[in-house]
Amino acid sequence: MGERRPDTLFWVDPASVGSELLKLSPDESHHLLHVHRAKAGTPFQAIDGEGSFFDCVLDSVERRVAVGRIVGRREGVGELSRSILVLVGLPDSGDVEQVVAHGVPLGVSAFDFVVCERSARAALKSQRLSRLGRIARAGLKQSRRSRLPEIRSSGSLADSLKYLPSGLRFAADPGGEEPAPSLVKTSEDPVTLAVGPPGGFTDGERRLLQAEHFSIISLGPSRLTTETAALALISLARNSLR
Amino acid sequence: MGERRPDTLFWVDPASVGSELLKLSPDESHHLLHVHRAKAGTPFQAIDGEGSFFDCVLDSVERRVAVGRIVGRREGVGELSRSILVLVGLPDSGDVEQVVAHGVPLGVSAFDFVVCERSARAALKSQRLSRLGRIARAGLKQSRRSRLPEIRSSGSLADSLKYLPSGLRFAADPGGEEPAPSLVKTSEDPVTLAVGPPGGFTDGERRLLQAEHFSIISLGPSRLTTETAALALISLARNSLR
Repeated sequence: MGERRPDTLFWVDPASVGSELLKLSPDESHHLLHVHRAKAGTPFQAIDGEGSFFDCVLDSVERRVAVGRIVGRREGVGELSRSILVLVGLPDSGDVEQVVAHGVPLGVSAFDFVVCERSARAALKSQRLSRLGRIARAGLKQSRRSRLPEIRSSGSLADSLKYLPSGLRFAADPGGEEPAPSLVKTSEDPVTLAVGPPGGFTDGERRLLQAEHFSIISLGPSRLTTETAALALISLARNSLR
Repeated sequence: MGERRPDTLFWVDPASVGSELLKLSPDESHHLLHVHRAKAGTPFQAIDGEGSFFDCVLDSVERRVAVGRIVGRREGVGELSRSILVLVGLPDSGDVEQVVAHGVPLGVSAFDFVVCERSARAALKSQRLSRLGRIARAGLKQSRRSRLPEIRSSGSLADSLKYLPSGLRFAADPGGEEPAPSLVKTSEDPVTLAVGPPGGFTDGERRLLQAEHFSIISLGPSRLTTETAALALISLARNSLR
């Protein structure tokens, strides 16, 4: 008792959460027991990636697995009051990772890396998506959010647009005529954002977005890369919407 | 004549700009002549980093130096109507570079990487500042801005605060009580932004900021790293201010 609580959040599989106890994975257990040297009675905090946040106390260790006693459970810790879906015209690998690494702490609830006409690359395969999932998980823990964003990669903009939530829709495009909006702060409607690939959306893609009620907006007088534009638009949605 | 204009901007030293002709540096000349295979009559565009943007036509080549005939000159191309100064509590090297790489296209006019009480690092030395200057120059060309931001590194927050422009001032802090503001869009007053180092501002630093009329604002419910918070705040200033 009286041990200092690690500042890190730990990850727990929702299937390993009972009503009074939860079990960490072997990896997370190792981190808690050996990196943070937790002992019976040490408090720690865990998230399940589905919106639940647990205050725990280390109860016991069974075959190298840390078992925590749940002393508090909260929903939606660190989450925005509305969801943000981002469609990003597929850029280079490093840029995709940057969008996820910054976008997760900024509150994005789903990413779709879309093969646009000017992407000149194939959709991300499962191995790449797994790697992005690991980056997202690390970002979730570091930023103290509780709900893991979904990450997918659609083969075309038309495919991506089939699965949109209702709510506000904005696409950033250098040719956009409207200035970036002051979004309605009080609404909790989902927001869908779209940013073109390097080279931008084609005319056909722009028409497709307009047909789906996206407002085509300009982010300003200088030319932004796909990843910088994505981060700027996400920041705007995050902080203009409260 | 009739050659296709390179999409790249070229850099020209203000001292090498005459009333009718300008001369590129040997590096930039090589790029224009050999990478883009420009010939006499090929149009190109250049910026001087002090706000001037030149439409040129390649006139001649003198000892490997490209000489351009100036056919148009514009001021402030790609620049926002107000200046944005950002004070960033000194984080790790890679993070400093990310702030510059994204912040320059987003329109920052000056960066100060400030040694805060929790920075645990010394101020950036001239070699590091030169490297950041090269990143800024590349970002300026890529984003088609025309005015090169200043980059400095103050030894303390108190030192940094000695040289602030008047205008609006916002500091992002996890303990900030006000939500991020909808800034006045029509004003052209300069904006000064401040973001704490990893670990945040100390109480003393927060009091110093308040004494200098910074509004201490929160960027939302999740915890952001220094570099993500800086990009979010810059994005907000860029796009809420028009």
